Amino acid sequence: MTVPALCRIDAVPLAAMIRRREVSSREVMAAYLDHIEAANPRVNAIVSLRPRAELLAEAEEADRAVARGDAVGPLHGLPQAIKDLAATKGLRTTLGSPLFADQVPEADAVFVARMRAAGAVIIGKTNVPEFGYGSNSYNPVFGLTRNAYDPSRVAGGSSGGAAVALATRMLPVGDGGDMGGSLRNPAAFNNVFGFRPSQGRVPADTPDPFYGQMAVEGPMGRTVRDVAMLLSVQAGYDPRAPLSLEDPGFRFEERLEEGRGPLRLGWLGDLGGHLPFEPGVLELCTAAFDVFRQAGGSVEEARVAFDPERLWQAFVVLRQQSIGGRHDAAWRDPAQRRQLKPEAIWEIEGSHGLSGLDVYKAGLDRGAWYKAFTALFERFDFLLIPSAQVFPFEAGIDWPARINGRPMDSYHRWMEVVAGATMAGLPAISLPAGFDPRGLPMGLQLIGPPRGDLRVLQAAARYEAACPWITRLPDWLGVP
Amino acid sequence: MTVPALCRIDAVPLAAMIRRREVSSREVMAAYLDHIEAANPRVNAIVSLRPRAELLAEAEEADRAVARGDAVGPLHGLPQAIKDLAATKGLRTTLGSPLFADQVPEADAVFVARMRAAGAVIIGKTNVPEFGYGSNSYNPVFGLTRNAYDPSRVAGGSSGGAAVALATRMLPVGDGGDMGGSLRNPAAFNNVFGFRPSQGRVPADTPDPFYGQMAVEGPMGRTVRDVAMLLSVQAGYDPRAPLSLEDPGFRFEERLEEGRGPLRLGWLGDLGGHLPFEPGVLELCTAAFDVFRQAGGSVEEARVAFDPERLWQAFVVLRQQSIGGRHDAAWRDPAQRRQLKPEAIWEIEGSHGLSGLDVYKAGLDRGAWYKAFTALFERFDFLLIPSAQVFPFEAGIDWPARINGRPMDSYHRWMEVVAGATMAGLPAISLPAGFDPRGLPMGLQLIGPPRGDLRVLQAAARYEAACPWITRLPDWLGVP
Repeated sequence: MTVPALCRIDAVPLAAMIRRREVSSREVMAAYLDHIEAANPRVNAIVSLRPRAELLAEAEEADRAVARGDAVGPLHGLPQAIKDLAATKGLRTTLGSPLFADQVPEADAVFVARMRAAGAVIIGKTNVPEFGYGSNSYNPVFGLTRNAYDPSRVAGGSSGGAAVALATRMLPVGDGGDMGGSLRNPAAFNNVFGFRPSQGRVPADTPDPFYGQMAVEGPMGRTVRDVAMLLSVQAGYDPRAPLSLEDPGFRFEERLEEGRGPLRLGWLGDLGGHLPFEPGVLELCTAAFDVFRQAGGSVEEARVAFDPERLWQAFVVLRQQSIGGRHDAAWRDPAQRRQLKPEAIWEIEGSHGLSGLDVYKAGLDRGAWYKAFTALFERFDFLLIPSAQVFPFEAGIDWPARINGRPMDSYHRWMEVVAGATMAGLPAISLPAGFDPRGLPMGLQLIGPPRGDLRVLQAAARYEAACPWITRLPDWLGVP
Repeated sequence: MTVPALCRIDAVPLAAMIRRREVSSREVMAAYLDHIEAANPRVNAIVSLRPRAELLAEAEEADRAVARGDAVGPLHGLPQAIKDLAATKGLRTTLGSPLFADQVPEADAVFVARMRAAGAVIIGKTNVPEFGYGSNSYNPVFGLTRNAYDPSRVAGGSSGGAAVALATRMLPVGDGGDMGGSLRNPAAFNNVFGFRPSQGRVPADTPDPFYGQMAVEGPMGRTVRDVAMLLSVQAGYDPRAPLSLEDPGFRFEERLEEGRGPLRLGWLGDLGGHLPFEPGVLELCTAAFDVFRQAGGSVEEARVAFDPERLWQAFVVLRQQSIGGRHDAAWRDPAQRRQLKPEAIWEIEGSHGLSGLDVYKAGLDRGAWYKAFTALFERFDFLLIPSAQVFPFEAGIDWPARINGRPMDSYHRWMEVVAGATMAGLPAISLPAGFDPRGLPMGLQLIGPPRGDLRVLQAAARYEAACPWITRLPDWLGVP
């Protein structure tokens, strides 16, 4: 197997080539579809792929728009597969659940419509865990997505299909969402960037627009520039999302070079001994500090004045309440309930024990965490913590039952390291942190201050420029 | 009694006179303190008044800053009393509760700090209902605030002290907060403007910064320009309030004149027969349409495709959850519980019956209401609905047990008409709607689209320019 040259070009330069007519969208599409046909069976990252003839026709239409001199967007003519949790007009959207196996939405999700308006050709979907629950992308509809660097291991999730498709060069840029690390964990497991933007940065049209403040949508990419470009497409106020943030009035990728000056980094490590890690994870992350030092950064230990167990319990309560509420009707119907995975049942039934006061107190804990956590930005420009507590584990395991000997009390406890940024609503990017001796990737979260999306991207660009392993491809793809 | 001439000048021109040294802050302060001494005993609007000597000294300090040519803010040298629910550094802040009768905060609330930085001299506090619960400003600490136009009747609330102080010319401009109409109801009851800004426009540092989305802080005034000026002082992002809105980048009052063009107004009336009104309220409000027509507006009936009872029940649930959570510790302590008013106990004990799922569903109802309500802005620029369902009622009554024969099932049901804007998080100003034959004032809510604060103020300014009764003072003040 080999990767076609066009598929090795990142999104921003590839889109520029299409706009300048140095390559046609049709050629790009054909190369991607050939490569997907060859590579995807090994990893099962892209699902619901649309017919080749339709896609080539849409690519040709994109080429005609360029030929006419139409104003075109930053994704113009690029193939894109959308995470299968997000609605795509006229294209099957299963959420990885048998209950929605035949769902064909009548409208795009807000960010999907924006990507389409920016010129993306939607070729299919990227695989997810059932409803996105759990950072392991398997489901009864499409099966398991496998790790790009070791297909005997898991991809991570929930944006697992997107991360693997990026790493295997089956997509130029990727989209995802993140409640419990779903943009960060699979990025870490597949040596790409996954950016959880500030709460509200990317608007979503949800049934719970005021209180649904755990999940966000966001971009993934092989380069920070691609991530920043896609964020610019996705971001900005929409009245359907009453808490969404105003457009900052600039394109993120055009200001990446402005990130200079000191880079004071606070290392959170294992949160004062609270978090267990598979041996090698912390070592790989701390070794990656050298990349930051080459980029002009300094790293010091940071301690949050807050009990991390209290943070986690509040996360569990708020997550159970929203997941339980979301699936209440399905759970009450025995026929539907049988089609929910045990982890979903665990969330829903957990929600049944929650009082309104429990939920209120979890909200208070979230507020207190926000204050304690953001107080660190008086001393640091950014915070660092690993993106995961384990390396990609073996396919067939649903979730790690233990980490370094410590038993995990829920299906998502092994992802606890992501909860801090989620609960504070802060922008956090997973940076590729290198590979262990087995060739398994790991990631490092770079967390910025409130609404500091641009600053996070600028710091990530400095890291990227000094980082040697970012361009490493999976061996089996056969690129020298 | 007569009102000193300086106290009859509105805030924006008065502050300009101080800046231009046409009058000293000391003269202004002395005039206000004299007038408060004369008028306040009749209405009990201002409480915790600071000693005269201190205030005159601070006013003199303000005059020295002007004399030095310092850059000064838009409130420079104006006397201001802060609503007694908001923390004032070094100044007693009781919340109208015996539990906090001796509380002296160590820091200002965010908006108070901004008003102080803009040059306001904090002279005392304005009276409120206990904890702000119920739109009637009585409490065991300071007693009852009486209506400016008829001191045998109530002031409304919870920003009752502020509204009465404005109407009686004891303050040039006023601040307040609004969960269930607390900026709108007392404005309506006292012939002034009370503006509930968009959710998040004025940041607050609360223990529940992510989920506490019912209450907002905002401005009151005798003129729209004063309201807009104070909003500019209060508004803008603060990281302590993670959901707060970015500063719009302009001063609201400088753009009031830009509001031209069509003014398509949708009249919500009694929400399809759902809301009872005291006879005369609807008639007075619909008569005020003529003011809008003179300002170039047109009014048509508007119907929301949403069951108003479902809206109200969701409001009750979300309010009970937050109030119950807030007072949980006090309620558990018998000694403290005895010091809570029955309405607070009703809220708290109501919260005990709420499950996490009840709260989630109320959030869904809020989201659905937001969508149904904001859909009206496809057809209308603004929506109109009365600010209250009854005229100011007799002092001594805690809350109306019936409206037009219909029994009220809670202490706040009589204020149901305010719930729509609160639950949608929309900007809503109470406009003076005139006086009934008894001389009792009423107000009309003008509700704008999401984040349309400036547009609401512009439309209110057009209304104001055509409205004859806005300058009517209470007879007993003895101004011709």
